[in-house]
Amino acid sequence: MGEQLQLYSYWRSSAAYRVRIGLGLKGLAYETLPIHLLRDGGEQHGEAFRKANPQGLVPALRHGDRVLSQSLAILEYVDEVWPEQPLLPKSADERGRARSIALAIACDIHPLNNLRVLQYFEHTWEVPQPRREAWVRHWIEQGFAALESMLADDPMTGRFCIGDTPGLADCCLVPQVYNARRFHVDMAPYPTLLRIDEACQALPAFEAARPERQPDAPPA
Amino acid sequence: MGEQLQLYSYWRSSAAYRVRIGLGLKGLAYETLPIHLLRDGGEQHGEAFRKANPQGLVPALRHGDRVLSQSLAILEYVDEVWPEQPLLPKSADERGRARSIALAIACDIHPLNNLRVLQYFEHTWEVPQPRREAWVRHWIEQGFAALESMLADDPMTGRFCIGDTPGLADCCLVPQVYNARRFHVDMAPYPTLLRIDEACQALPAFEAARPERQPDAPPA
Repeated sequence: MGEQLQLYSYWRSSAAYRVRIGLGLKGLAYETLPIHLLRDGGEQHGEAFRKANPQGLVPALRHGDRVLSQSLAILEYVDEVWPEQPLLPKSADERGRARSIALAIACDIHPLNNLRVLQYFEHTWEVPQPRREAWVRHWIEQGFAALESMLADDPMTGRFCIGDTPGLADCCLVPQVYNARRFHVDMAPYPTLLRIDEACQALPAFEAARPERQPDAPPA
Repeated sequence: MGEQLQLYSYWRSSAAYRVRIGLGLKGLAYETLPIHLLRDGGEQHGEAFRKANPQGLVPALRHGDRVLSQSLAILEYVDEVWPEQPLLPKSADERGRARSIALAIACDIHPLNNLRVLQYFEHTWEVPQPRREAWVRHWIEQGFAALESMLADDPMTGRFCIGDTPGLADCCLVPQVYNARRFHVDMAPYPTLLRIDEACQALPAFEAARPERQPDAPPA
């Protein structure tokens, strides 16, 4: 399994951002294959990329002759193939909780707010921009309130989402906090999320994965 | 870990339906704790249930003194705690693919169409019902076209999503096909999905998990 990893990515995709963090935490090198989600109507819809990932979504990871889609499937895959620096904790209880937090973001916040949904509102329903932004904030705020309550009260919470080692749940939390800031969500009601985000941002793997640090990011 | 499993469920929730199938495939007995998502403004919003799951969503699994939320986290958890009759295949490649299919449904189709989103459209945006139903069909059709293309062409596909043993991906596919039929999606363009759905429906674990077979389903 020594083939190079190639990641189809877009600098601002928060699902790709999750995978970049995870690969960094595990110390796995990879080549970035940028897919521009806006240019030419979206390169993710082009035939070349659809052949790699019929879903037409980033991220996707090429390893050997196979391409794997879905950020959480990719993170679990690299954690199984390269078990060093695990992204998941050891006990079934902690693993369950890590996945539960990750999925509360990846299923119940992010898909409602991603590009294709906002494009549907704009072009098919002609929803005005302030309403679209209120929609985005609504789901982030509802999701963050639940996460704050889950994380603030649980003995499993440590410096990071699960104990004192960053992992799968943190890979999802940090990009979602980035997105929340982009949409001007007031983060004051979520002190535990803020504290964990800050602890993560201090680590090189999180720093290197930031959208503006990507090769396909526009000049500042 | 001999404590009884209790599943917070709602007969028509397709995320709860996934977990019911998985518990059935593994031969795990459980008690159903019905949470009525419509009665009294939705029992999932009540204080008692919020204490168990701050997200206010079903399903959630009580095992011992902990409650685990998120259907896919629950399925992975029971697969780790009780490894017999595994829901996930053995090789990292196949496991990655199983999760990728499951997440393509659980992240990219279902969250866009669930009750709270349709309620937001109805009550906050006052979107008329035909438009809401067109929205639901749009995401199911887009998601199913991608899944059909992924599954029809891949040597890993067998009688079920991965080979000839039903598992995690099938636990997600069958409830989504049920939902598609509820919203009158034309299934003809997805012959592979139909074939796998039919193979699943012939098995007792899938039959027992059907919405209308649940203790909280209304009389036919």
